[in-house]
Amino acid sequence: EPQKRIDSDNGVEVTAGNSIYMVSDGTGWTAEHSVNAALGQFEHCLVDRGCAVNTHLFSGIEDIEQLMEIIKQAAKEGAMLVYTLADPSMAESALKACKLWGIPSTDILGPITEAIASHLGVLPSGLPRGAPGRNFPLSDEYFQRIEAIEFTIKQDDGALPQNLIKADIVLAGVSRTGKTPLSIYLAQKGYKVANVPIVMGVKLPKSLFQIDPEKVFCLTINPVVLQAIRRARAKSLGFGAEVRSNYSEMDHVREELEFAGKIFAQNPVWPVIEVTGKAIEETAVVVLRLYHDRKNRCSMPRISKRY
Amino acid sequence: EPQKRIDSDNGVEVTAGNSIYMVSDGTGWTAEHSVNAALGQFEHCLVDRGCAVNTHLFSGIEDIEQLMEIIKQAAKEGAMLVYTLADPSMAESALKACKLWGIPSTDILGPITEAIASHLGVLPSGLPRGAPGRNFPLSDEYFQRIEAIEFTIKQDDGALPQNLIKADIVLAGVSRTGKTPLSIYLAQKGYKVANVPIVMGVKLPKSLFQIDPEKVFCLTINPVVLQAIRRARAKSLGFGAEVRSNYSEMDHVREELEFAGKIFAQNPVWPVIEVTGKAIEETAVVVLRLYHDRKNRCSMPRISKRY
Ligand SMILES: Nc1ncnc2c1ncn2[C@@H]1O[C@H](COP(=O)(O)O)[C@@H](O)[C@H]1O
Ligand SMILES: Nc1ncnc2c1ncn2[C@@H]1O[C@H](COP(=O)(O)O)[C@@H](O)[C@H]1O
Ligand SMILES: [Mg+2]
Ligand SMILES: [Mg+2]
Repeated sequence: EPQKRIDSDNGVEVTAGNSIYMVSDGTGWTAEHSVNAALGQFEHCLVDRGCAVNTHLFSGIEDIEQLMEIIKQAAKEGAMLVYTLADPSMAESALKACKLWGIPSTDILGPITEAIASHLGVLPSGLPRGAPGRNFPLSDEYFQRIEAIEFTIKQDDGALPQNLIKADIVLAGVSRTGKTPLSIYLAQKGYKVANVPIVMGVKLPKSLFQIDPEKVFCLTINPVVLQAIRRARAKSLGFGAEVRSNYSEMDHVREELEFAGKIFAQNPVWPVIEVTGKAIEETAVVVLRLYHDRKNRCSMPRISKRY
Repeated sequence: EPQKRIDSDNGVEVTAGNSIYMVSDGTGWTAEHSVNAALGQFEHCLVDRGCAVNTHLFSGIEDIEQLMEIIKQAAKEGAMLVYTLADPSMAESALKACKLWGIPSTDILGPITEAIASHLGVLPSGLPRGAPGRNFPLSDEYFQRIEAIEFTIKQDDGALPQNLIKADIVLAGVSRTGKTPLSIYLAQKGYKVANVPIVMGVKLPKSLFQIDPEKVFCLTINPVVLQAIRRARAKSLGFGAEVRSNYSEMDHVREELEFAGKIFAQNPVWPVIEVTGKAIEETAVVVLRLYHDRKNRCSMPRISKRY
């Protein structure tokens, strides 16, 4: 994201393109996530294809003056507004001001909150997450998540194989199949993850074969794509041509994937997940679906939580 | 989350409580994020306060038969439906079926996509993220994010101080101020982060004072809350009573925070961020707002991106 940074001067955009203003009384990450998904529907025209979009995130907006200032600025820039405002009177003010200024707007929080309210038969609090008096619970879940992150960092890249038994999920795959970012993504969701690299000619840790095989997940990838990723990697690490060729040469890549494939075949309980063309969060959901199915054995694969 | 797992049998919920079904043709994380934020509005009544909620995430739902099966199951369970379906005919089918079965439903993707479409004057593709033919771009941003994660893992807990110069963001604070999870959170967003622990009586690395001070961010916390966190930590690590008392004893906690406070005061360019009562993502947005303001010097603090 530092790369995507755009310069602006006194709040006036210097880069051409359509603007989306995102306003939240909280962090704004919910609005950003939704906008991000929706922008996926316009990939055919984003940057370099004619309709570049600039997003601007305004977080912690809790009073009406700040809100109005931002909406006025949005009007000046010809931007649209996306907002999450827990206080219904703030949300209403945003809607009215947008109508008044002729700005298209979308409320991300209101509709779903109302639907849940009538489903539960309970009124929403109307309090922003940072409202005074709300105290942040140091819940078990909070500590569990932090522990998962710390565990996962320590287990990266095959470290401390004696701890594999303590992991919820163990990932195995050759270099550059995305084990590290996937491990971290899952750790953020509260799972303790260990990842074990598969390197041709290197013996895997004994403990990998001693733990519950239902928690081991294998990653595989198309050799052509892997070669491209490894080339990019070798270049960025500044490897010399010699190391580079062995690491990213096609024959070597294919052989290593075959080597991994044989190990996977010898352990048929381990599912093999194809990561080619998948974003990290897409692979993550495949892993978690399998993980939860194995625990719960539902007729319809699902990931369930309790709030 | 493994903790929150609930057991179900043949797809029939055995735990009492209201159900929310989340359906996506993609991962479902966008729907989950929105539901999560909205559930924050019902904290006063969730688990143990009368209205427990069970969420069920169904990802990769790309055909109408699967969709209808899930909606029927939702009707049986008396659940509500939250969905993100890129194909307008799928979204319409979901809406119609919910009306037919009397299920409350919320479309998370449709309204924002329509608003953006009319703002840009461009039609949405209507293609789910996993649609055949869409090829996943191995973009610079993708590689940058992975590099940021790998960098950040290696720099955890004061490791490799000679690399501080390569970081985008450097976090400093005493033990248990959340440096590690915050670093990882920011890394996921593409920033290279290093964190430096402050320990009473231990000299900080020289390089911390040689790098651009505008990229250093200090974390502080209320001593009473810190003590509670440290106690929980010491217990979970199984520290003996002796180590524990020094680490989490109130006098020691206060002294160490004062020690840190003096260092921060000697480096007035470093902002000091209060983390008490903040979730990781809340502290993250404070850091990023300051980070981007320093780069862009806008009149209205914002975080901008280009798509
Ligand atoms: N734990 C929570 N309690 C109350 N409201 C929340 C909570 N989490 C998020 N929200 C609200 O949901 C919206 C989105 O949050 P955010 O993603 O932080 O911008 C904001 O209006 C927040 O005030
Ligand atoms: N890069 C993308 N391209 C097209 N559609 C996307 C993209 N990312 C997310 N979406 C859509 O946005 C919705 C939410 O995505 P997800 O969070 O993966 O469930 C789904 O309907 C996806 O198909
Ligand atoms: Mg790795
Ligand atoms: Mg740490």
